[in-house]
Amino acid sequence: MTEIEVKIPASQAAGYKVIIGQNFLDAVWPMIEAGFAGRNPFIVTDENLVSAGHPQRLTGKRSIPCFIIRPAGEISKNISTVTAIIEAMEKAGLGRDSVIIALGGGTVGDIAGFAAAIFKRGVPVIQMPTTTVAQADSAIGGKTGVDSSVSKNAFGAFWQPEAVYIDVAVLKTLDDVQYRAGLVESVKHALIADADYFDFLEKNLDDILARKPDILEKMACFNCKIKAAVVQADPTEKNQRRVLNYGHTIGHAVESASGYKLLHGQAIAIGIIGAGLIEIEMGFSQPGRLERIKKIFEKLAVPTALPGYLAEADLMEIIKYDKKAVKRWPKFVLIDKIGHPHCPEGQWAVDVQKELVEKILKKLK
Amino acid sequence: MTEIEVKIPASQAAGYKVIIGQNFLDAVWPMIEAGFAGRNPFIVTDENLVSAGHPQRLTGKRSIPCFIIRPAGEISKNISTVTAIIEAMEKAGLGRDSVIIALGGGTVGDIAGFAAAIFKRGVPVIQMPTTTVAQADSAIGGKTGVDSSVSKNAFGAFWQPEAVYIDVAVLKTLDDVQYRAGLVESVKHALIADADYFDFLEKNLDDILARKPDILEKMACFNCKIKAAVVQADPTEKNQRRVLNYGHTIGHAVESASGYKLLHGQAIAIGIIGAGLIEIEMGFSQPGRLERIKKIFEKLAVPTALPGYLAEADLMEIIKYDKKAVKRWPKFVLIDKIGHPHCPEGQWAVDVQKELVEKILKKLK
Repeated sequence: MTEIEVKIPASQAAGYKVIIGQNFLDAVWPMIEAGFAGRNPFIVTDENLVSAGHPQRLTGKRSIPCFIIRPAGEISKNISTVTAIIEAMEKAGLGRDSVIIALGGGTVGDIAGFAAAIFKRGVPVIQMPTTTVAQADSAIGGKTGVDSSVSKNAFGAFWQPEAVYIDVAVLKTLDDVQYRAGLVESVKHALIADADYFDFLEKNLDDILARKPDILEKMACFNCKIKAAVVQADPTEKNQRRVLNYGHTIGHAVESASGYKLLHGQAIAIGIIGAGLIEIEMGFSQPGRLERIKKIFEKLAVPTALPGYLAEADLMEIIKYDKKAVKRWPKFVLIDKIGHPHCPEGQWAVDVQKELVEKILKKLK
Repeated sequence: MTEIEVKIPASQAAGYKVIIGQNFLDAVWPMIEAGFAGRNPFIVTDENLVSAGHPQRLTGKRSIPCFIIRPAGEISKNISTVTAIIEAMEKAGLGRDSVIIALGGGTVGDIAGFAAAIFKRGVPVIQMPTTTVAQADSAIGGKTGVDSSVSKNAFGAFWQPEAVYIDVAVLKTLDDVQYRAGLVESVKHALIADADYFDFLEKNLDDILARKPDILEKMACFNCKIKAAVVQADPTEKNQRRVLNYGHTIGHAVESASGYKLLHGQAIAIGIIGAGLIEIEMGFSQPGRLERIKKIFEKLAVPTALPGYLAEADLMEIIKYDKKAVKRWPKFVLIDKIGHPHCPEGQWAVDVQKELVEKILKKLK
């Protein structure tokens, strides 16, 4: 037998810019033309964005090939939509010298980002998030994917965007329930990374709910700095990036058990309260901490307790099959205090006994 | 407006081993278990391999979940097959801690490699190539993908294998036409990289055609060393890797125009003769060089001239739409002498006038 080694050299360090502003959608196109000269653009958006007039504002009088996801939402987050996008690109004469612009919420970003990752072995993607959850979280960091008939994000890739443009003014047209649920990811960011940001959210919540652009711009800056710091420390989620999963272990189970009747952010709010209860039981909380979080969630009108129709036993079963579970039980991300993850010996997710989680789920009712 | 930079750190250098031997299929499994401890294996193969008994030889009495591609061949190289593989993995309870073993020819390797690239944002793949073309070329280097209804490899990713096992004994059961066509990629390797290898092929062609294992093992070593050197110099085909496209610009057009009646290697043989004629016209050939190549191809019983049913005008049209074309005309890979690419000023693909290609296509009749 002979052994031959194929060496794969290290990739170079890279990076991308997140541009945050207000009412600059019509000024973005020249920036894209300057930054991606020689690449043929293709827009992926959804029918809600078209109704709100955002793609039209972005392209102006230019004629740019475009794929409109219909219906909007999670229901279209599957491989058929990706196939349709790629075949539409081919029919528009686009090849490996193209660039995809993802204009929309988390679903559009996930679908379009994944299409970019696999079209002709990869073309650049520009993320232009238009919802609270996408602007705070999903547009940055390169996680892309679509669902199979069996599970969420069964198909996916890590594919970093090459630019992110965040116009907080587009949030004005967002449905109120979605708007509020998306803010839960901002609370999560504050909890895992920045006590000052938590104070900011507490203090400015009325202005945030009134969608005042200056406050939204400041909030976007906090979110992006936090997300960027975590992503650059661990781009492909080997360890530290797991901190972004705060509240998500119970939260994902709740979301799934609700049959996706609960929005992601609504389920994560319950998950964050669950994590808070675990922290109290495990002895690393401070008096009044969980109450502060609850108060924000109540103002956001997102749930802080399990809906009556969810059974603890079902939730336990789903948690066992969490995608990060090893031997049928996942580790949990917890915080020592607001802005500070619990990270013993460099581990960003820790053991929590099954019995304790069962007890917490009862308390969450 | 605010600008925030997301930095993506450099990846570490990596590598993988190509193990070449004879009749060691039944010894591979313990190596996989040792090298991928804690990962759950999943085999992707096709109905021809099952008929030949190779998957059974690989797994022995172990019960390993498996997906059998039916029908075997290019016709199954599409996104539906990838979806079926991924859903089969999920139904078998496999998650991100799995490892895919691709046992088969180029099609199996492309499909299974792509499934590995996108399952749960990427799991490792082990390539076990079983054809002359896959052992010489496609199993090493990380190009994966499947076709759309519009074009070849419209969906794809660069996804390096984490190990490659080449058992030359499995070639014994390979269909003779496929066996011979696949050897054209070996001739290509010799032409672009190693004059001694070309001499070896010339000298040992009878033994190669008789499928003598010792000679096949030596041939595999030559091929893998050449392919490894090119891939590690340029893993994602920015420039130098294009040298592997020698003979492929005309060859791909011939393959496509034939409606894939010609096997890949058969079409590439014609493409290599076409490149040789271009080299003569452009003044960098040596007397007798093209004749030596032709003689090998004649012994392999692969075509060295265009089939009568292909029209030059159609071929020219396809070449214009080559995936590497810029402004509707691709560059060509050429060689100065056997084993030595023509690479002026660091460019591994060069300009060739349309008129000259038209002339050559006439000569190729």
